[in-house]
Amino acid sequence: MSERYHVDGELVSASEATVSVRDRGFMYGDGVFETLRVYGGEIFEWEAHADRLRRSGETLGFADALPSRDSLQGRIQETLEANGLTDAYAKVSVTRGVQPGKLTPEPDVDPTVVVYTAALPRGGSDGQRVWDEPAALSIVEQRKPAKTALPADAKTHSYLNSILARLELRDTEADEAIMRSVDGVLAEGATSNLFFVAGETLYTPGDSVPLLPGITRDVVVDIADDAGISTETGEYEPDRLADATEVFVTNSTWEIRPVTRVDDWEYELGPVTRELQRQFDERVDSLYD
Amino acid sequence: MSERYHVDGELVSASEATVSVRDRGFMYGDGVFETLRVYGGEIFEWEAHADRLRRSGETLGFADALPSRDSLQGRIQETLEANGLTDAYAKVSVTRGVQPGKLTPEPDVDPTVVVYTAALPRGGSDGQRVWDEPAALSIVEQRKPAKTALPADAKTHSYLNSILARLELRDTEADEAIMRSVDGVLAEGATSNLFFVAGETLYTPGDSVPLLPGITRDVVVDIADDAGISTETGEYEPDRLADATEVFVTNSTWEIRPVTRVDDWEYELGPVTRELQRQFDERVDSLYD
Repeated sequence: MSERYHVDGELVSASEATVSVRDRGFMYGDGVFETLRVYGGEIFEWEAHADRLRRSGETLGFADALPSRDSLQGRIQETLEANGLTDAYAKVSVTRGVQPGKLTPEPDVDPTVVVYTAALPRGGSDGQRVWDEPAALSIVEQRKPAKTALPADAKTHSYLNSILARLELRDTEADEAIMRSVDGVLAEGATSNLFFVAGETLYTPGDSVPLLPGITRDVVVDIADDAGISTETGEYEPDRLADATEVFVTNSTWEIRPVTRVDDWEYELGPVTRELQRQFDERVDSLYD
Repeated sequence: MSERYHVDGELVSASEATVSVRDRGFMYGDGVFETLRVYGGEIFEWEAHADRLRRSGETLGFADALPSRDSLQGRIQETLEANGLTDAYAKVSVTRGVQPGKLTPEPDVDPTVVVYTAALPRGGSDGQRVWDEPAALSIVEQRKPAKTALPADAKTHSYLNSILARLELRDTEADEAIMRSVDGVLAEGATSNLFFVAGETLYTPGDSVPLLPGITRDVVVDIADDAGISTETGEYEPDRLADATEVFVTNSTWEIRPVTRVDDWEYELGPVTRELQRQFDERVDSLYD
């Protein structure tokens, strides 16, 4: 069966899965998206992703043009079914669509809505990680824009900042780029949030830092609270990682991915990461019941 | 005759002028572009635009995949001819195209190349401005990202910063948004560079400020030099505009557009702006010979 995409309400083949060159998503990165993980046919944390997609749309001033969350969920489910997928990656994008020639957005929006899915291994305690090995990180020169310059908490098609960060990894052993704020504190990876353990405490850069608070990051903080693991968010200089005993990164696809290296600092998979992974897998397992 | 676009080497109709939803230009704003003005069939300052497109491609790490400047110029000319245009706006985009699933760009690039053209009035001293009236500016809250966070001098499809600036103009009388740097100095408009005259001197924010140094901005500085008008570039607080006697904005489409208002400050069309416009028109006239 050939791959099917969902574009503007219709299931189409890959060759038909196109947008106009006048689409503002293409011309200006003027769109919002979410990447999702599907376990046993269930979209993990759908409500949280749908909430964030709406908030991203509000930041860009076209939230009213977004399809309802039920409509979006329906499109994702139709795409999964058309591709025969129950364990999958899914990406849903909504752009401001085609408008008359000007840069200034018109209030009247006919959005472009795209769903793309791809097979992933089964998740949970009987499942398999999507990554072959732990992550190797590098702290790159590329910085995160200040919140006054680009809204860090909106997930948009203007994604160049993360691409430039990843470009710095060429000819290195690292596979994820950690960016700092312009002020020099740790922010986030190109597509992930950063956590580290020092002493008895789990740390992650806080919301005062320009970063996209990931859905998986929220789940991990929630699990840590339940497990009685002390969690602190704040602003951390990179050299705080010198004292860390465990480091991991999170996103919807990777879930909780251990880190064995940040530039010259080395780490081993430790008990906090393992416990969080175990409890994360339990949450995933419940979707297969 | 129906509108023709140039997409990946072919002239196509508007409905065929599409890109894959997997194109990195669409997914991530991972592309570069130039907007051009065509006078009497000649692309104004083509060499300068071609140079900047290449520099933008270098910043994004795929300059080697850009078509040659002759090839690009040929595509633009073909598009103009197919649409029967000699006085026109033209936009040329080159994206990193479709690549396998990951965010990290692959070195092997099959670019997507799009040319779009539209009719504009004849330029020069016998011509007609594309704007109906002088610009009204507003200094918006949206800031320009620091250069360490996004390369200001690359013109890319990740254009959200300027869109957010323009969104702030809704329900105002202003039609161009002036952004400051995060540090609070004047940077540029959403699609234009800013100039002001105070005393005997022409001022424009300098390259230490995060801004895209426009081709028209360069031409204006060059003309000012020739005309013996003293020009200064630097870092200017917004209240420098309180003492200005003339203000104008520049871009390839607007050329030199006088400004009558920046928020509560008012200006009239003055002798420096008029002289620069006159000499700019002379340069344009030479393309019609």
